[in-house]
Amino acid sequence: MPAISADQVKALRDKTGAGFMECKAALTEASGDVEEATTILRKRGLAQAARKVGRSTQQGQIGAYIHAGGKIGVLVEVNCESDFVARTADFQTLVKELAMQIAAADPKFVRREDVPAGELDHERAIYRAQVENAGKPAHVVDKIVEGKLNSYFERVVLVDQPSIRDGNVKVSALIAQTVAKVGENITVSRFARFKVGEAA
Amino acid sequence: MPAISADQVKALRDKTGAGFMECKAALTEASGDVEEATTILRKRGLAQAARKVGRSTQQGQIGAYIHAGGKIGVLVEVNCESDFVARTADFQTLVKELAMQIAAADPKFVRREDVPAGELDHERAIYRAQVENAGKPAHVVDKIVEGKLNSYFERVVLVDQPSIRDGNVKVSALIAQTVAKVGENITVSRFARFKVGEAA
Repeated sequence: MPAISADQVKALRDKTGAGFMECKAALTEASGDVEEATTILRKRGLAQAARKVGRSTQQGQIGAYIHAGGKIGVLVEVNCESDFVARTADFQTLVKELAMQIAAADPKFVRREDVPAGELDHERAIYRAQVENAGKPAHVVDKIVEGKLNSYFERVVLVDQPSIRDGNVKVSALIAQTVAKVGENITVSRFARFKVGEAA
Repeated sequence: MPAISADQVKALRDKTGAGFMECKAALTEASGDVEEATTILRKRGLAQAARKVGRSTQQGQIGAYIHAGGKIGVLVEVNCESDFVARTADFQTLVKELAMQIAAADPKFVRREDVPAGELDHERAIYRAQVENAGKPAHVVDKIVEGKLNSYFERVVLVDQPSIRDGNVKVSALIAQTVAKVGENITVSRFARFKVGEAA
């Protein structure tokens, strides 16, 4: 039988709200598997089912923006390091600006790393075929394909998009300006954009 | 070679914006597969990559609500049959009410059918074990398990939740009241709820 560590017991207590001895017994029965131990505790009625697992690790703000008379809506989470900064006008202006950017420019991803590899390969293959069909010499094909991929990123990746206010400024530069003002790192963790009827 | 129908050509034209003859040729080459034909057209530079596939089939409104000083945000799409109704105060009051409900009561799904079968089975097994461990006689176990499942739905399913304003009124009844007022069917198609830090 594996030894159950104090850390494991603490993790299960934090997760379920059950007592020390109950958690230790459940972990022993589950050979240290926290998920399995949680299920055991719940079956015994000892765990609070709705207890939230993760606790907030970052500060920030949720921004919302409703566009076009309620036909388009955006929700965006922007994170910083302290709640003090999250409450500043500079930070909140950026949150609002990003929500409006997403409403107007309709990005699909926050950053390039979020584009699924399969989708990227698919785009790349199409651009390559386009360039080759256009009869371009082999030594320039790679360069042109890279250029087309960059244009693709500028359409679908939020931080690569040109700002809706000034096409010469990228969204990543807008964020960097606010980072410089408030003196904390800022990241966009996620967004949602709903348009009436598109889910049907 | 399969015959290409006028409907298939029309679907591809709507999707890509390419001409009739190009669409027909691409479909023939792709043996009628619209996805494959789209890729062929894009490789030839004949399709507009960013062209949106689905067009709005329903009217309605997107509602947003920001709670707790920007720490929680909600986006909800509520649909009705006409834009006329979508613009009425009765409908917009319901949209706002639903956004506030989601912010405060944190549902996970719009309706019971949206709960994944695996999750439902998991809950059911836990409730059954709880009831059997409590030594209840076999002939009442099913009834008690059903009751516990109903409580689960009332926690996690939006339309089954009690209204945050009046615990005796279900959200589904709130929606039905507005349906009666505006004379059109109303559905909630989706929602998003962000809490600062929980995505990290």
